[in-house]
Amino acid sequence: MTSINQNYLELQGSYLFSEIAKRRTKFIQENPNAEIISLGIGDVTRGLPDAVLKAMHSAVDELAAPSSFRGYGPEQGYDFLINAIIENDYKARGINIATNEVFVSDGSKCDVGNIQEIFSENSIVAVQDPVYPVYVDTNVMAGRSGKYNQETKRYENIAYLECTAENDFKPSLPDRKVDIIYLCYPNNPTGMTLTKEELKVWVDYAKKNNCIILYDSAYEAFIQEEDVPHSIYEIEGAREVAIEFRSFSKTAGFTGVRCAYTVVPRELKGLDAAGNEVLINDLWNRRHTTKFNGVSYVTQRGAAAIYSAEGKEQIKSLVDYYMTNAAIIRDGLASLGLEVFGGVNAPYIWLKTPNGMDSWSFFDKLLTEANIVGTPGVGFGQSGQGYFRLTAFGSRENTEKAVERIRKLSL
Amino acid sequence: MTSINQNYLELQGSYLFSEIAKRRTKFIQENPNAEIISLGIGDVTRGLPDAVLKAMHSAVDELAAPSSFRGYGPEQGYDFLINAIIENDYKARGINIATNEVFVSDGSKCDVGNIQEIFSENSIVAVQDPVYPVYVDTNVMAGRSGKYNQETKRYENIAYLECTAENDFKPSLPDRKVDIIYLCYPNNPTGMTLTKEELKVWVDYAKKNNCIILYDSAYEAFIQEEDVPHSIYEIEGAREVAIEFRSFSKTAGFTGVRCAYTVVPRELKGLDAAGNEVLINDLWNRRHTTKFNGVSYVTQRGAAAIYSAEGKEQIKSLVDYYMTNAAIIRDGLASLGLEVFGGVNAPYIWLKTPNGMDSWSFFDKLLTEANIVGTPGVGFGQSGQGYFRLTAFGSRENTEKAVERIRKLSL
Repeated sequence: MTSINQNYLELQGSYLFSEIAKRRTKFIQENPNAEIISLGIGDVTRGLPDAVLKAMHSAVDELAAPSSFRGYGPEQGYDFLINAIIENDYKARGINIATNEVFVSDGSKCDVGNIQEIFSENSIVAVQDPVYPVYVDTNVMAGRSGKYNQETKRYENIAYLECTAENDFKPSLPDRKVDIIYLCYPNNPTGMTLTKEELKVWVDYAKKNNCIILYDSAYEAFIQEEDVPHSIYEIEGAREVAIEFRSFSKTAGFTGVRCAYTVVPRELKGLDAAGNEVLINDLWNRRHTTKFNGVSYVTQRGAAAIYSAEGKEQIKSLVDYYMTNAAIIRDGLASLGLEVFGGVNAPYIWLKTPNGMDSWSFFDKLLTEANIVGTPGVGFGQSGQGYFRLTAFGSRENTEKAVERIRKLSL
Repeated sequence: MTSINQNYLELQGSYLFSEIAKRRTKFIQENPNAEIISLGIGDVTRGLPDAVLKAMHSAVDELAAPSSFRGYGPEQGYDFLINAIIENDYKARGINIATNEVFVSDGSKCDVGNIQEIFSENSIVAVQDPVYPVYVDTNVMAGRSGKYNQETKRYENIAYLECTAENDFKPSLPDRKVDIIYLCYPNNPTGMTLTKEELKVWVDYAKKNNCIILYDSAYEAFIQEEDVPHSIYEIEGAREVAIEFRSFSKTAGFTGVRCAYTVVPRELKGLDAAGNEVLINDLWNRRHTTKFNGVSYVTQRGAAAIYSAEGKEQIKSLVDYYMTNAAIIRDGLASLGLEVFGGVNAPYIWLKTPNGMDSWSFFDKLLTEANIVGTPGVGFGQSGQGYFRLTAFGSRENTEKAVERIRKLSL
């Protein structure tokens, strides 16, 4: 019989959101009349912006006739989308990105999952804790994690950078040599951000210590405050140390439409076994063109429409809608005396569970007593124990209703 | 500096189709008035079937309003598509496939590229030669290839199963122990097929020798002859040894729309390091849900429409169109005394270059003297040297014109 990738056996339990779905399904089966409000999985709920719909319809029409049909496109994405990205997301902020530095893909989950494969299997990885599980699991699959310790509930070779209320959710620098650092800002799950000055500390650290920062910026569109950087490339020197991931999923309601992009600057280098410098951009380009075949043309046209004048306005109102929800949850829970974080520059509210309850108990309490599905903080790592994530992606009505239901709980 | 995945440095040259694009672009720059006919990259050219267009428009409309909006779907694909696949592609041929054995994806290139990662890095891989380059390159990236031998132009750890006119393009069984065998039927690039009896030899071999067959069946829709199996699961025992890859790219013109699927039977097992059996289906499910986030809803609705009565009829006429092209090329070249293969159950015509010309010289001759872009056989492996691939995916007009132009060449 063929031998398998043994690393897969080090993966722990099932993926967080599958476990949530399981408990939710069980509850619904036992309580078929319960009206569940989901503020759990970070999935949007509003319709796509008009500009996007129009562009997608028109792209579908193009595919009807041989004269306007589009088959395989460039694996890296069409120029019309790449140029719109560069112009609006970077140039408008004074950042220069070249067309061959942008890689359009079908999702940030795919990109942050696949990126590790271009690095050595011996690389030491640092992640924030709590953390988006994909960063960890994909490194486990690649054999970089070492064994899972059942007591600490952590992998022995991964460096965990703890983020709790005690350090205002700002991770301290690694206490050992690491090669790859995953940073996510605005943060999922805590909803917290770094200022430019705080992010500069990380860029400087990476330069000095020869590491690469994988900067997941999927929630960039939700930033409201002035001093919060929209891109890591706002920080001097970041082009030499950072890869940036962006997504249209939450920005424009693309969770079911699938589009994202990754920026890999040409200054970013790695070392081969002989000590020669290798352009990371070349490696990622090879990976992307060998194992991927481009994003749906219809999707790319939809994504490009976000950057039209009409599209920008519609995106803004979409973001405003969700951020008003965030304020409703944040203010509502705070008024009940709960400790809440995030929700200012991100669609996530991170709350301290009342009375030292553990995260899954609070999950079950919310589910059974208020029929609300949230996400247990501990599902994102040990430092998330005793915390809980609510998202601002529900409808206004459900968001208000959820806060009312929580108000009636005995906490 | 962070160390890179050293295996990437074993990759040879650039990817075949990039090299073709480069030579083509150079020729066009030097001959701006040349009217190029592309029968090179296997990309379709006809518009999408009406049924697909309608379904996609209607899916876009659904995404407009919160009440019908769809965000994240199941990573494995929506049931409406999986059930249509099972019913039409399998049950209609007497094959039982369960819903949890089908994984919808954004392309067969991605699936055949990613599948290797669930197997041991020490697995010995066998490929047909000539071969779709992705099978080889993705195993090089994973460190299974060993060194590239500049003289033989082959990787030392890969078993090459030669397919030439001498053995009627039917590979002989491996002459050493292998763990994973890539088979592609109808074959890309040769356009040749196996009968049920011939495919049974491989299934029996895999059972007896404990290997897994990765069966790439992206061109299944083009099969015309009776005794050619449409699925490897038509062969008894195949559920215990084979994974099957199918694509909508060529079947329905989805090269720019992106949809495919992979079948992993629950009987298929691998061994972990302790000698325990592990379900390959579980591993692939874990990979698929961790590193992928589902196919665009709009695309999945389009794919499902292929299975409607209207859709089936339109697909049939699309396939007929291309297969008539195939006959025109095949018969046209044969009438010039060229040795031609394939083109009967596949949209590819594989021809022996005249007068022992090497593949790239014939490429340059066709490009410069007839302004036709084809694919050099040697680009698919050493056994492809002296062969050349033409595709039937052009328009009727261009296909006829191309044959006329070749007729006028001095060969």
